[in-house]
Amino acid sequence: MDERLQGQGEHPSDAMCETDITGNEQELTFDPEDWDGLRRLGHRMLDVMFDSMEGVREQPVWRSVPAGVRASLEGEAVPYAGQGAEAVFEDFVEQVLPYPMGNAHPRYFGWVKGTGTPLGMLADMLASGLNPQMAGFDQAPRLVEEQTLRWLAELMGFPAGASGLLTSGGSMANLLGLNVGRFAKAGFDVRAEGLAGAARLRVYCSAETHSWVGKAAELLGLGRAGMRVIGVDAEYRLRVDELQRAIAEDRAAGLRPFCVVGTAGTVNTGATDDLEALAAVCRSEGLWFHVDGAFGALAYWSEELRVRVRGLELADSVAFDLHKWGSLPFEVGCVLVRDAAVHRAAFASTASYLAVLDRGPVAGGMVFADRGIELTRGFKALKVWMSLKAHGVDLFRRLVEQNVRQAEYLGALIGAEEALELMAPVALNVVCFRYVAAGLDEAGLNELNTEVLLRVQESGVAVPSSTVLQGRFAIRAALVNHRSRREDYAILVRAVVDAGRAVAAEMMVPA
Amino acid sequence: MDERLQGQGEHPSDAMCETDITGNEQELTFDPEDWDGLRRLGHRMLDVMFDSMEGVREQPVWRSVPAGVRASLEGEAVPYAGQGAEAVFEDFVEQVLPYPMGNAHPRYFGWVKGTGTPLGMLADMLASGLNPQMAGFDQAPRLVEEQTLRWLAELMGFPAGASGLLTSGGSMANLLGLNVGRFAKAGFDVRAEGLAGAARLRVYCSAETHSWVGKAAELLGLGRAGMRVIGVDAEYRLRVDELQRAIAEDRAAGLRPFCVVGTAGTVNTGATDDLEALAAVCRSEGLWFHVDGAFGALAYWSEELRVRVRGLELADSVAFDLHKWGSLPFEVGCVLVRDAAVHRAAFASTASYLAVLDRGPVAGGMVFADRGIELTRGFKALKVWMSLKAHGVDLFRRLVEQNVRQAEYLGALIGAEEALELMAPVALNVVCFRYVAAGLDEAGLNELNTEVLLRVQESGVAVPSSTVLQGRFAIRAALVNHRSRREDYAILVRAVVDAGRAVAAEMMVPA
Repeated sequence: MDERLQGQGEHPSDAMCETDITGNEQELTFDPEDWDGLRRLGHRMLDVMFDSMEGVREQPVWRSVPAGVRASLEGEAVPYAGQGAEAVFEDFVEQVLPYPMGNAHPRYFGWVKGTGTPLGMLADMLASGLNPQMAGFDQAPRLVEEQTLRWLAELMGFPAGASGLLTSGGSMANLLGLNVGRFAKAGFDVRAEGLAGAARLRVYCSAETHSWVGKAAELLGLGRAGMRVIGVDAEYRLRVDELQRAIAEDRAAGLRPFCVVGTAGTVNTGATDDLEALAAVCRSEGLWFHVDGAFGALAYWSEELRVRVRGLELADSVAFDLHKWGSLPFEVGCVLVRDAAVHRAAFASTASYLAVLDRGPVAGGMVFADRGIELTRGFKALKVWMSLKAHGVDLFRRLVEQNVRQAEYLGALIGAEEALELMAPVALNVVCFRYVAAGLDEAGLNELNTEVLLRVQESGVAVPSSTVLQGRFAIRAALVNHRSRREDYAILVRAVVDAGRAVAAEMMVPA
Repeated sequence: MDERLQGQGEHPSDAMCETDITGNEQELTFDPEDWDGLRRLGHRMLDVMFDSMEGVREQPVWRSVPAGVRASLEGEAVPYAGQGAEAVFEDFVEQVLPYPMGNAHPRYFGWVKGTGTPLGMLADMLASGLNPQMAGFDQAPRLVEEQTLRWLAELMGFPAGASGLLTSGGSMANLLGLNVGRFAKAGFDVRAEGLAGAARLRVYCSAETHSWVGKAAELLGLGRAGMRVIGVDAEYRLRVDELQRAIAEDRAAGLRPFCVVGTAGTVNTGATDDLEALAAVCRSEGLWFHVDGAFGALAYWSEELRVRVRGLELADSVAFDLHKWGSLPFEVGCVLVRDAAVHRAAFASTASYLAVLDRGPVAGGMVFADRGIELTRGFKALKVWMSLKAHGVDLFRRLVEQNVRQAEYLGALIGAEEALELMAPVALNVVCFRYVAAGLDEAGLNELNTEVLLRVQESGVAVPSSTVLQGRFAIRAALVNHRSRREDYAILVRAVVDAGRAVAAEMMVPA
């Protein structure tokens, strides 16, 4: 690209206060003088990314950043002088593109990271180029987000008229839902008064609830002391009887329960709490019912799988991601709130420079800023809207079903291998297992499986992740990958068995 | 594009549990069967966006969404069947592209919204296509964000070794900074204990502080009662004497001051508090000093303008945006924290499925997730890194200087028009003014200028915004636009004068 910029070398300072208003003297700008040159570079960039996506299966899933690349990325001084877009794109191609986390690869089963989609990438380009500020207001992008939220509410079994907001992801969506619950159920004006001097509020979750809840409790000023963790049953579901006892105990102790967090698809094992029972408890106790469905909620879109997350639709608020099981590029999550007025009342504010007028660009007000903590928001909605329309919801749900069947298939492959042990029920799309070797105690198995995991990851053949279930190290495959085929699971199993055999042999050799 | 998908019509369910692991049967995927077709569509999309950016000056700044488009965007049912990417792109071109907020236009002076840049759009495409999850870990994108943060810290006068995080924008960056301050200065373990039962914490800000501070105080559980608003002087700067009296009063009343928020560039008038004085107060009182520099902080990059925001570099934490005066596409803000250990300690958590290993993809841990509330984060850093390198920091600061000179120029144009009145000092890049007409009282002038504002906006010629200063409605031009030329300010002034004359004449006609 040609980086010569308009008027460079003609610093306008000396003339700025003159009354010459002809505009003949050109100012500086970030726009290129040579639009065609930058456009050509853009087309090259697009081709490189398509090549990368189309050929991802032939690449290693992951590789460590080499020392030379690391040194180069760490060592560059502040770039005061421009290097030009061409040169910087070359840096990207050499230093960045080859060393991602790997989640675009068909054999990435690590953590719950979406794969991304080519159409999602294109939609993000359009959104960034259009660059609307999504606080609300009279602009088509606002209508796109509102339409998208209506669709998502319907797909989650929420009533027409429910409210919602697209967010950066599950942590933010869950935080917003919890905050609406606090506003609605604290029993005092928490926005005005804050928590100092009030009765201690309590939120209930299970030992398998994602770590967002602790961070949210801290941020909201509830503290860890404002959170009570309930045990789980053998299928990793929140124990409803223990919850009820805890609520009664806390009330008796003068604390103020305000919210129960249920999970649709725990991150460790894919378990789903008995959401209908939790909804009933919340109803009878007058508590807010929030459901974290970060990935699991997408199962609700499938008529076949809906039964596994039933009760989701009874929540007062539900959080889920489109960039996990929905496969869209980061970032896009969503919170839905049943009662739109409560959602708005929990967050809305006004500022004098944002005075709402009924005409002009600000007509309609800050509908989205009034539903969360961000005033400036990007056009995340576009990739959701375009992808739902282009692919159709049917493809989303069939791909969810496909991953669930693949999880069953992987479970069956594991069951067929004598050296492998399934470590938790395959409740949805998470499979936890390990390599077992005679003569090793639990500590030895933990050591062995840790090494197995690392060797498989480092081989670049497949990237599963890990977790610890009741003190036992488990290799964990989270299936939210639209590129995976059954052959990929067979390759994973083979890689784990081979690595297990090798590591076991090494461990058996007396030191 | 060809939307026929691999294996469509061959639902794999019936075969999923068989032991056939040859992979011959193709599963569904979001990838296109016809990669070349989607690639061609992508190139068309890119051309449309380049055409749009290159030709933006010839378009109206803003126009209301027409009823027909609105009805179409509001009326579509959940798209269960896929419509294909081609058709959806046509919808985008017809229904969305022509009706944005207008902030990409050279005569958009409304609120503080960045213009966006073509290179920023391309970088967002690359980021979305690569799609790394930016919690941290061993991947090149992590190194890109760390390098970017080091550059930004140096550019803001923060010490080497300072910490930071890219955020969705200023509200989030400010919230994070305030939360670190609460953690550091509460005087008790706020993460563990929460705020119930503790002394009431107090954060101090000015009447001109942006509305984020109220929302943050509410979210953090401090409540509005945990926030004390200090008055401003004639130049709209926080009154330091009043602050000191307030702190003493609050301490005497048993409250616990913990943080002072200073502003570099207020949203209403562009004023900057006496940050050196505020830093001194915080030092002597043992308080956290947070600076909101959402747009104003960028002035620190300019040797010439640095003096106007001096003291910024003394903050314990500072928040600013790259998508405002840095012109990059939404979303990207930043918080810097002087003490990296405190930053991490305020947020860090671990989860069993994210156990840190010193090899494999998770090596290095969740460096970014441990600095904020989001676990999943997108690759916002890429557009900052590429833009700083490609354009050079020098161009960023020259464009900041250019907007400041344009603000002075606009002020001079207003001064030269008898019918216009400047309503606040032009401290940086915000110009507040109004049309004055003999025979109208303040209420009449407010009514007149509201109508003038709306007519100018609706004309599509220019989009200034408005604010209310001491009860008087002001037309407000916020200059963060890299496309604006001096001629554009002359057009703005002419449009306001013409509309003012017309509205005044209408108002003078007896009803």
